[in-house]
Amino acid sequence: MPPEATPYARRRSRLVDRLSDWGLDALLLTGEANLRYLTGFAGTDAALLLTEGRASLLVDGRFLTEARETVPELEIVEIRDLIEGIAAALADGAPARVGFESGVLTVHVHQRLLAALGAGVSLRPLFNELSLLRAVKDEEEVHCMQKAAEIASSALQAILPDLRPGIAERDIALELDFRMRRQGAEGSSFPTIVASGPQSALPHATPGARKIQPGDGVVIDYGAVFQGYRSDETCTVFVGDPDCEALAAYAQVLEAQKLAIAALRAGVVCRDVDRIARDALRRGGWERFFSHGTGHGVGLDVHEAPRLNARSESILEAGMVVTVEPGVYLPGRWGIRIEDMVLIRADGFEILSRAPKTLTLLK
Amino acid sequence: MPPEATPYARRRSRLVDRLSDWGLDALLLTGEANLRYLTGFAGTDAALLLTEGRASLLVDGRFLTEARETVPELEIVEIRDLIEGIAAALADGAPARVGFESGVLTVHVHQRLLAALGAGVSLRPLFNELSLLRAVKDEEEVHCMQKAAEIASSALQAILPDLRPGIAERDIALELDFRMRRQGAEGSSFPTIVASGPQSALPHATPGARKIQPGDGVVIDYGAVFQGYRSDETCTVFVGDPDCEALAAYAQVLEAQKLAIAALRAGVVCRDVDRIARDALRRGGWERFFSHGTGHGVGLDVHEAPRLNARSESILEAGMVVTVEPGVYLPGRWGIRIEDMVLIRADGFEILSRAPKTLTLLK
Repeated sequence: MPPEATPYARRRSRLVDRLSDWGLDALLLTGEANLRYLTGFAGTDAALLLTEGRASLLVDGRFLTEARETVPELEIVEIRDLIEGIAAALADGAPARVGFESGVLTVHVHQRLLAALGAGVSLRPLFNELSLLRAVKDEEEVHCMQKAAEIASSALQAILPDLRPGIAERDIALELDFRMRRQGAEGSSFPTIVASGPQSALPHATPGARKIQPGDGVVIDYGAVFQGYRSDETCTVFVGDPDCEALAAYAQVLEAQKLAIAALRAGVVCRDVDRIARDALRRGGWERFFSHGTGHGVGLDVHEAPRLNARSESILEAGMVVTVEPGVYLPGRWGIRIEDMVLIRADGFEILSRAPKTLTLLK
Repeated sequence: MPPEATPYARRRSRLVDRLSDWGLDALLLTGEANLRYLTGFAGTDAALLLTEGRASLLVDGRFLTEARETVPELEIVEIRDLIEGIAAALADGAPARVGFESGVLTVHVHQRLLAALGAGVSLRPLFNELSLLRAVKDEEEVHCMQKAAEIASSALQAILPDLRPGIAERDIALELDFRMRRQGAEGSSFPTIVASGPQSALPHATPGARKIQPGDGVVIDYGAVFQGYRSDETCTVFVGDPDCEALAAYAQVLEAQKLAIAALRAGVVCRDVDRIARDALRRGGWERFFSHGTGHGVGLDVHEAPRLNARSESILEAGMVVTVEPGVYLPGRWGIRIEDMVLIRADGFEILSRAPKTLTLLK
């Protein structure tokens, strides 16, 4: 590999090297995160065609100038219609067996493609083959994720003093989103969750007009985007004097989270990490209130491979970045979730998210 | 129809009434916007099963409480895995022919579903049948879209005085996003575009560190979300004394936009609206720099049916909401786009977006 190769060229080359193993002549990619990963192009409605000796990016008129500027090393093809453009590009060469992302292409697009392609071209679904494509982060990616996590954590710490009785959930979310952007984030990784009191029992609550009450727990699940890469972190903080039972649950969730993180290293099976968190919650009698998986990979998408749940047979590798986020939710009463984003190392881990997870009581 | 039916029940009933026309026993829906439209449920990873006499919403543990609270009239089924949950729910009744959204389901999910379903169940792709499902807005929806457009337009007008030489594109975008949220928006309809000077020649530019220069045109494409419904509007304003040619193009784009809007009414074919805009730009010699369609439907998604482009045979109906947004882009020099969001009436139209489109020169 020539030393001047960009990260994108390295990634494409690693993928194209697998073509013959998969019995394929070419790859057709349309997933936005995959295109960004393999080319740096961040537009929409585009397609990337890869063969042994050729890489073409198909874009429509809206993205033509941008594609030529950001991906000068690729052949840029202007298209009017994605399906017709792909069919024309495939007719151009002679790649007979073309792999596609079966987890991205819709049934409708697949049907239209089948109808448009010449008789010599066959489409082969790829799913497991591509599922770990972006899971192991390279140096450039880890740098972006560190930066995203730093921006987010420091924005949260700056707004914590504002969490007082009387402030509305949505005003907290707005202030946090605003601070992340001011500190250099391109946006929020996902719609920020600020859920107080009984609302915190909904794992995916939308911040509303509810005002913080004395004694509330407040779940804040948030992240920043930096150069396309997303951070993901959750803090649960208490305002005033909370319910004793919630405090006991907090201690147990924190223990579950720490034990699960302590188990992270290359070679570990993901479902074992989930089991460690679940077992720790079971010891406090909380396991039946833990209604989701323990974590997930994160990168250009906020949810990506690998999954850390009871069924996941994926094996952790150095360079993967995953969340660890056990939670306990008592409908109508309260909820607690504690989440860090963690980089897997050969012999352990590095926590990228920075907000402290020790019990925080805001008076 | 009983007078107390919710808008959601009315919409489901209208859809279920088509089942026999389509030769189907049941519908399986998983598209997030379709689920929100048909039930009010705003979570993710869920499925809706509709038959003549039954409506079930399948959700995982994260959304169980929320689903029970927001959609009390539906049967709520807790699932661990979407595919297995759907297969079990379909095994439960006897619906043999099940229609699904072929524009939503991926090839992979479709393959897994086929493998999981019992022998008596067949899946039938629906695309054209569902393409106009949400295109005609009812009264409740029009209200939300009016509100979204009002929030967005008034936020833009409040920040226009800040557009002075020296301010960075991304700071303008941040201020606009912040104001929309402060005024009651749930968020921005899409990543706000603020593109100045030569950047404005990229129709989908990302706001960057570039600072406004005297003489710049600035394209601002933005929208607010209100109760899930999105507005979409674009203003191009000039700071200082702009290039004469850009001013001439502005006048021509504005004329093209006004002529296209004037043609809107129920019964008109969408491609004719596109042609009117294109013809008007051609008269000024600008048509070859107009690199996208004239507009699109908007609602729970920012891009939905119908499309207003050179190929679109859709026919406008009263209650549709579409954008009209001709543009001219000279690579490396400047770009201009003018966009309004318009409600179609039986005998004409109503412009929902409120920012003035007359030439704005900020000194």
